[in-house]
Amino acid sequence: MIDPTTLHGFFDYLPEEMVIRQFVSDTWRQIFEAYGYGQLKTPSLEYADVLFGKYGEEEKLVYHFKDFGDRHVALRYDQTVPLARVVAQYLNKGITLPFKRYEISRVWRADAARKARKREFYQCDADIVGTKNLLAEAEILMLLHDGFNALGLDEHVTMLSHRKILEAYLDVIKISKEKVIEVYRSIDKLDKLGTNGVEDELKSRKIPVDLIPHILDFIQKENKSNSDIIKHLHKKLQSNAEGKSAIDDIEQVLRHVSDMGMPTANILINTSLVRGLDYYTGTVFEVTVAKFGTSSLAGGGRYDNLLHTFTQGSIPAVGVGIGFEPICLALAENGLSPQLSPYADVLITVFQPSLMPEYLKIAQNLRKSGLRTDLFIEAGENIGKQLKYADKKQIPWVLIYGPDEQKEGVILIKNMKTGQQERVSVEELLSEPRKYIKSGMMNG
Amino acid sequence: MIDPTTLHGFFDYLPEEMVIRQFVSDTWRQIFEAYGYGQLKTPSLEYADVLFGKYGEEEKLVYHFKDFGDRHVALRYDQTVPLARVVAQYLNKGITLPFKRYEISRVWRADAARKARKREFYQCDADIVGTKNLLAEAEILMLLHDGFNALGLDEHVTMLSHRKILEAYLDVIKISKEKVIEVYRSIDKLDKLGTNGVEDELKSRKIPVDLIPHILDFIQKENKSNSDIIKHLHKKLQSNAEGKSAIDDIEQVLRHVSDMGMPTANILINTSLVRGLDYYTGTVFEVTVAKFGTSSLAGGGRYDNLLHTFTQGSIPAVGVGIGFEPICLALAENGLSPQLSPYADVLITVFQPSLMPEYLKIAQNLRKSGLRTDLFIEAGENIGKQLKYADKKQIPWVLIYGPDEQKEGVILIKNMKTGQQERVSVEELLSEPRKYIKSGMMNG
Repeated sequence: MIDPTTLHGFFDYLPEEMVIRQFVSDTWRQIFEAYGYGQLKTPSLEYADVLFGKYGEEEKLVYHFKDFGDRHVALRYDQTVPLARVVAQYLNKGITLPFKRYEISRVWRADAARKARKREFYQCDADIVGTKNLLAEAEILMLLHDGFNALGLDEHVTMLSHRKILEAYLDVIKISKEKVIEVYRSIDKLDKLGTNGVEDELKSRKIPVDLIPHILDFIQKENKSNSDIIKHLHKKLQSNAEGKSAIDDIEQVLRHVSDMGMPTANILINTSLVRGLDYYTGTVFEVTVAKFGTSSLAGGGRYDNLLHTFTQGSIPAVGVGIGFEPICLALAENGLSPQLSPYADVLITVFQPSLMPEYLKIAQNLRKSGLRTDLFIEAGENIGKQLKYADKKQIPWVLIYGPDEQKEGVILIKNMKTGQQERVSVEELLSEPRKYIKSGMMNG
Repeated sequence: MIDPTTLHGFFDYLPEEMVIRQFVSDTWRQIFEAYGYGQLKTPSLEYADVLFGKYGEEEKLVYHFKDFGDRHVALRYDQTVPLARVVAQYLNKGITLPFKRYEISRVWRADAARKARKREFYQCDADIVGTKNLLAEAEILMLLHDGFNALGLDEHVTMLSHRKILEAYLDVIKISKEKVIEVYRSIDKLDKLGTNGVEDELKSRKIPVDLIPHILDFIQKENKSNSDIIKHLHKKLQSNAEGKSAIDDIEQVLRHVSDMGMPTANILINTSLVRGLDYYTGTVFEVTVAKFGTSSLAGGGRYDNLLHTFTQGSIPAVGVGIGFEPICLALAENGLSPQLSPYADVLITVFQPSLMPEYLKIAQNLRKSGLRTDLFIEAGENIGKQLKYADKKQIPWVLIYGPDEQKEGVILIKNMKTGQQERVSVEELLSEPRKYIKSGMMNG
């Protein structure tokens, strides 16, 4: 006998969990499609060469191995690098720019064994490739806004910044170019380590000690309005053309999302935001929901040079990775997961096996009406046991039909939550099933 | 610069292809849910031990390797063995029998490099675990019937047999028990090799030469009705209790599906059907569509002993694997794929960038109404180029709005297929967008 067990960091999702995960996935898919994004699927495995050299310090987490043909291959680390490969591979052979695509799929990390870190998990991405136009940023931010609202999280906040703002400031205070990425990586840990932690991190990365207070001051979050922050930034960066242009970009994005109807409360400039990945070159953003803590539920930005790894010229792009797993976890931990029945809306019990032809006919009729219908399949069990089955499977409605009901041409409808029962004529039920049985599933 | 390329046997699916694949996947998902099946997701990787010893001669195709922790792991070969593991692992800890589940996910094969063989592909399975009741078979067959109808393939035929029928006949003609699986494996190749090929195969597997004509005669397909075949089988197997019981099973399944409304023309007894995999123990079935050739689009059967590998007692089960890739291929090759626009239902062109606030407002309104709406994002391109973009992305409707239209409060709606144009008041369009723009996507 073989021990039934899964690998560390790999998980089974039973129907009770899948119904929620499918809801989250469907919600994003519907939003992406509403914005005109086409779906892309890339393989799980890539040549290791395709993935290496893109993720900076995170590269050690790429799950790579030698395959049966002795090829050096790697399981997909994210969906962005494969997207860059795809664009280079199919440009003008199936892909027209600007290319808007989404992908909801699995990625893998060769992560050290730690609690709650998954080695296999889902990502949910939307990207626009082939434009420097800031409308792209605005569209992605608006799409996120709509998506989080659709999940019932209208109090989400999008934090917005631009890598060149901090870069310009570092230039103003004379931090050398090659140290800039080190500063990014330190500041990226602000939420995790706090200001003191970032200070230590900056020291350990050999940032001049006298400049550290300036950096910490610049990234300090304060309760200011976006227009106050912009005024403040203009003042600090007035001598730096690149920095000023970055501030203009931020203002432009804010104007676009406002035109699209995003409330001011949902978007906030935050100069401490840099995003860890090395490939970002312009705007960066993250979405948080205060009641879920400070960790972000989505994050992205502009990466105008990543495509350059695969193509002759550079192709600009902007995109977002939505934290599928953090969202599912946050919904569950906060009791906000939608109440969805994982298997069926209704169970037809088998009161008397000889009535099977009737049960089958009723089942097929209900299914045609779009109701998720389970027929109890172990003939010979008593009704009590069948009701227990419905209870365990969280099936909200149960039908009971025996010889007495047959004589009268009625059927008993039982609501498993309230315990209420109702006798309805079979004919009436089959002509208007949804009047009596409510679906507990969006695509039921 | 890194060569943008995929591993042999691994494929990218661009939006044009994904929109069809998503349609096929959604169709099955909806059918599975209509029948009360819950969704399961199992990991891509399993301990190699979990998979080995289940697939008979196919085992050499299991994609296995040593991971970064020197564990012997394997990419999932199918979704059935992981299901068996899951049932053993969560029985009475999340799973209640009978357990009806579906899974639509990727599987992998370490296949030799051959044209059109994928090393990564999708499978689409439905199984019922925990019952010997033949209602389970009937339900699976009916679900297949509904699914193929929903794909527009109403002329599909389900071939039905029972492993014990052939086994009984082999017993009657005195083929030794240990040779039975060899006969199965030979007969399984009937469609591929033809009668002569099977004859050679039987010889090479050392089946007594004098018995081979009897076997070939028994599996001969003829144009007989199911009731004639049953009569014929009863005659040939009258001395064999197991064989007779298997025939009774077949009759029972036929009665159930008939009660569920399946037309007789869609189901056919076929004694040559054995299915290659070693783990089947009872009924077996396959679905074919004549115009797509003889290869099956779905296949399954009863496997009452597979669970035994992971549990103390044996747990009966029946299930089907639906050929996701063969179905997509057959639809495409026969011009039967649904006409679905891969990106958007409508493109809002940017006639004059200064009107952007108007475009954004219109876009958000259309999106709210459920129309997949793309806004042209490269400001400054002329309308001709934008129409070309719509054409390349197969966007069926285009909106044009310039200063003249603004003055009159109207918008131009262009149908890209017919070339027809219509001027409608903006107000009217936004109040009833679906009156003017038809969605080209089921969940649009």
